[in-house]
Amino acid sequence: MNTEDMSVNPAVQQMAEKAKRDDVETVWDRYEQQQPQCGFGELGICCRNCLQGPCRINPFGEPSHGICGISADGIVARNFLRFSAGGAATHADHAFETVEMLSKTAEGSVPYEIADPAKLKAVAAKLGVPTRGKSVKRLAADVAKVAFEDFAPGKETMRWLTANAPEERVNVWREAGILPKDPDLEIRRVMHQTSMGVDADYTNMVLAAMKMGLVDAYSGLQLGCDVQDIVFGTPKPVKTQANLGVLDEDKVNIIVHGHVPFLSEKIVEWARKLEGEAKKAGAKGIKIAGMCCTGNEVLMRKGIPSAGNFLAQEFAIITGAVDLMVVDVQCVMPSLAQVASCYHTKLVTTHEIGKIPGAEHMPFNAETADEDAQRIVRMGIEAYKKRNLSRVEIPDIRQEMWGGFSVEAIEEIFGCLNSDKSENPLKPLVDAITSGQITGVAAVLGCNNTRFKHDSMITRIAERLLQENILVLTGGCAAHSLGNTGMMCPEGTEKYAGESLRKVLEAAGQAAGLGAAVPPVLHIGSCVDNSRVGALLTNLAAAANLDIKDLPVAASAPELAHEKSVAIGNWCVALGVFTHIGMAPFVGGGREVTRMLTSEMEKLVGGKYYVEPDPDKAADTIIAHIKAKRSALGI
Amino acid sequence: MNTEDMSVNPAVQQMAEKAKRDDVETVWDRYEQQQPQCGFGELGICCRNCLQGPCRINPFGEPSHGICGISADGIVARNFLRFSAGGAATHADHAFETVEMLSKTAEGSVPYEIADPAKLKAVAAKLGVPTRGKSVKRLAADVAKVAFEDFAPGKETMRWLTANAPEERVNVWREAGILPKDPDLEIRRVMHQTSMGVDADYTNMVLAAMKMGLVDAYSGLQLGCDVQDIVFGTPKPVKTQANLGVLDEDKVNIIVHGHVPFLSEKIVEWARKLEGEAKKAGAKGIKIAGMCCTGNEVLMRKGIPSAGNFLAQEFAIITGAVDLMVVDVQCVMPSLAQVASCYHTKLVTTHEIGKIPGAEHMPFNAETADEDAQRIVRMGIEAYKKRNLSRVEIPDIRQEMWGGFSVEAIEEIFGCLNSDKSENPLKPLVDAITSGQITGVAAVLGCNNTRFKHDSMITRIAERLLQENILVLTGGCAAHSLGNTGMMCPEGTEKYAGESLRKVLEAAGQAAGLGAAVPPVLHIGSCVDNSRVGALLTNLAAAANLDIKDLPVAASAPELAHEKSVAIGNWCVALGVFTHIGMAPFVGGGREVTRMLTSEMEKLVGGKYYVEPDPDKAADTIIAHIKAKRSALGI
Repeated sequence: MNTEDMSVNPAVQQMAEKAKRDDVETVWDRYEQQQPQCGFGELGICCRNCLQGPCRINPFGEPSHGICGISADGIVARNFLRFSAGGAATHADHAFETVEMLSKTAEGSVPYEIADPAKLKAVAAKLGVPTRGKSVKRLAADVAKVAFEDFAPGKETMRWLTANAPEERVNVWREAGILPKDPDLEIRRVMHQTSMGVDADYTNMVLAAMKMGLVDAYSGLQLGCDVQDIVFGTPKPVKTQANLGVLDEDKVNIIVHGHVPFLSEKIVEWARKLEGEAKKAGAKGIKIAGMCCTGNEVLMRKGIPSAGNFLAQEFAIITGAVDLMVVDVQCVMPSLAQVASCYHTKLVTTHEIGKIPGAEHMPFNAETADEDAQRIVRMGIEAYKKRNLSRVEIPDIRQEMWGGFSVEAIEEIFGCLNSDKSENPLKPLVDAITSGQITGVAAVLGCNNTRFKHDSMITRIAERLLQENILVLTGGCAAHSLGNTGMMCPEGTEKYAGESLRKVLEAAGQAAGLGAAVPPVLHIGSCVDNSRVGALLTNLAAAANLDIKDLPVAASAPELAHEKSVAIGNWCVALGVFTHIGMAPFVGGGREVTRMLTSEMEKLVGGKYYVEPDPDKAADTIIAHIKAKRSALGI
Repeated sequence: MNTEDMSVNPAVQQMAEKAKRDDVETVWDRYEQQQPQCGFGELGICCRNCLQGPCRINPFGEPSHGICGISADGIVARNFLRFSAGGAATHADHAFETVEMLSKTAEGSVPYEIADPAKLKAVAAKLGVPTRGKSVKRLAADVAKVAFEDFAPGKETMRWLTANAPEERVNVWREAGILPKDPDLEIRRVMHQTSMGVDADYTNMVLAAMKMGLVDAYSGLQLGCDVQDIVFGTPKPVKTQANLGVLDEDKVNIIVHGHVPFLSEKIVEWARKLEGEAKKAGAKGIKIAGMCCTGNEVLMRKGIPSAGNFLAQEFAIITGAVDLMVVDVQCVMPSLAQVASCYHTKLVTTHEIGKIPGAEHMPFNAETADEDAQRIVRMGIEAYKKRNLSRVEIPDIRQEMWGGFSVEAIEEIFGCLNSDKSENPLKPLVDAITSGQITGVAAVLGCNNTRFKHDSMITRIAERLLQENILVLTGGCAAHSLGNTGMMCPEGTEKYAGESLRKVLEAAGQAAGLGAAVPPVLHIGSCVDNSRVGALLTNLAAAANLDIKDLPVAASAPELAHEKSVAIGNWCVALGVFTHIGMAPFVGGGREVTRMLTSEMEKLVGGKYYVEPDPDKAADTIIAHIKAKRSALGI
């Protein structure tokens, strides 16, 4: 494969050339080896849920049913539901881990503090947890207790859901029968439901998949994001850099990769404290760079630069300049061990459910977080000494990028445009949308996927939306993509935003004292921070006195790949949002399932999926949707 | 396919001929349509856990890794782990539902009673729940509370596990890192662990699969079985009949099919009460027959005859004499709707996660259990009026079969051989094993699977083991298979048991006043009742002052199919039991995973899997294993 066909990112292209020279196998080699991929799997019409299988449906005739008698739509729905459960479980498990950390922080048994007592109080207030007269730690313990209760049986639904979702939505979900009781019960039930000889009704299973979206959103995203804000601080606008050129050939380069920020925050801290040791080893210091969502976490709160996203992870190592990469869970390619073995790079796994053969496993324990982080940083310094300079080539490509746009930060910035400070801080944004200065709001989110040229869909769609004066929110892998383009800094406002959007962003930047325009693409954070998109839409709807489903907004995960993205997508649909995805999530072989997801759901919950692999066509349709919503509102 | 190649059961063969005449598609037609089945899936080397896939490994060369870089063993382990989680979740969800019923029974909000206060007290005592001075309902509420707590986070492991597993085993499992915290947390975590970019270490995942076995066993089987015994009574020996010939052409025939006994118990009750209405409709009464594990439940406690197991379900309808079939969850073929539509048969689904297009869905609620059961029985009577006599052909094949061999019943029976009644009731069984009168104990369990001629593996293996004086326990689908052969009645002792085994069974039957020999194959119940196998082995080991792993015992699931069977198998291995399965559960493409399951596990936990599709070879090896265990004990 031509390296130009792999990625729109010139830094990745350059490293792909180096990989060829260095004779290193990459994800694109394996992608080519996997061609052609199984059409049954792609269409979702292969079932392996019992040992009578695998059963495959012929989309053009016989066999039309599996051995047990399940139909194509039944198989497709079953697979889609399990896939959604995989995503929901992944986020819920991440969030559960943060709650354990919050609980331990409250009891003082781990070396973390409550960095944001104001957020803690705000979260407690949302949940109805009394705050008066309580110490910060006591309140943290009480909030953790509510979170743990959300994972226990015995209630109508999770408190994190009712505390965060609009009441109108909760009623819609109850009516549709998709209100989850508790995350773990629902995941367990879905595994039962999708086992052989249980559910054969695709409608029932598609609805259950929507429920998985709500599990993902409220017991995963929102819970994890809230707790991480409480412990590490709610992000504020921060300026940093993006792309592989952030690696520093003079410094010890450590990449933090994965999803849970507890270790990475400590590594950032200890990298600063151990600069002296790095210098003794001959380096000019220690450079921490972030990858994937761990990267987003430390970018949002510490201004740590972004080295890249999912499809860039191998290419970072191929620079020959990464001394150590430390990973935890999710989206970590097992191939990293092989790639790292071609260089001096030390690969360290840290999570008990995320081991990689060939990597060094160093279990991370919250109780010994400082010792663990020190040890890892020192391993990086040791590895630096073994760096082979003749193998080092860092692309001279880096881009200014801003992060830190939590809902609180967005409200603070736009609120500065209010002459009357007692007004709803989102009133200026609502006014700009109403007047047409801002056409609407779109979230461009999600993963990378080898089915698409790396970052091509994400960047093209965002570009098109900005031209149409649509404000873009981003997070997850998409945030790294867009950071690399320059759309996420004030210069991007000048270069990419339509004229009327640009004026609003300039005015807001000035009013808020940012010293520059607000970027036209706002970085809301990691993939668990996608909750911030829901929170912003919820607050916008409230400020406009409308339901979310009537807002001129859309979501897009152009290069979706992980099960998480489908669970999040289901949530977006359930929220009432028009949700673009770049490919059908293995459902094409189920005509009725596809019809439900892309059409029927709109009648039930107001949102639906829209599948389109061409970025320009997708942008056209998203823009048309937003304009239609405007028309329906008479604006 | 020749009907003789479909099943060893002549009644099924006869109905398979009728299906051809009636032009009804059956499971065997769909099996043939599915040939050849996908070799990648069969070997477990196809991954669809992210939208970059499907990825397939070439077992003979390249590609050797998935797009993300996962190895063949990584993919195989991931699939095996999710498959095991599907099984564990299915049983845990069933058990959870029984706990909800127990809780409602205790509060008096549902029309159920505590049929077995002695069992309730025994379970409470095992759990360390104080019993003194408590009313039955109060105690039931307290036991239900402990069960609910088992599903909530915040403890080392489930109380149902520590209350039932030998302490030696708990220590082994803790040491091996496979002690589950709570079922729902572990299932959620496994879904996370197996999502893209998390675990790539097959060892870690195979161990997690063993943990799923413990979840299945203690939060599924044991919990569900205990609660069902409490509410409906602990089974006692009962005589009934088996095979399709139990259907009665003069009566309204209603088949109860599925797994959860709450509705079926009520249907049995109301069928008796509504006999008059059936007679008014022209029938001689109402015949209830059981299918699959719902069948086992009502057989064990009410002596309801068995119509058949998984691969017999369609053929029951093909008799043309089934007026109504009511189903809930698990192992219910979606094809039943199509088959029923060829006759007058009414198919009724009742569970919210188990709907079938074409069936009538009538939600079953515990609160209205009596009304629901009445309505269903009346629907059966109505359907009877539409029966087409020209389409009716009931095979004149039925066999006496005994059920009801709970551990309590087995202990009571063999305890009668003790001259000193204060001795351990299992002492006579231990003595018989020690002396060699009984060579050992084997559980022949599990499903049906179209890969094997229906019931052929199960029946041949059991026959061989009995010849070698091995006492056989059975449950689940295998129980119906063996019931049909005559091995599960006193005549079977004469016909099938080896001489020394026969003598013990005759003596025990006489001592216990059964009026006949104890059957050589003991029916322990449904698939959740497999817990009784573990309980009996636990008690036998205690009586012999040995660890389970050293006993001359084995387990076999010759025709396994459902995910549940793999989860149960993992538990058997973790218990320390040599566990035969008739096929590799989609793991053949992972050399290291296969080695771990069939060899390494023995070093770690004392048990291992043994895969053999030939029943005689399998029997040879099981017998050799049991004899080797005897030799090791010097007996």
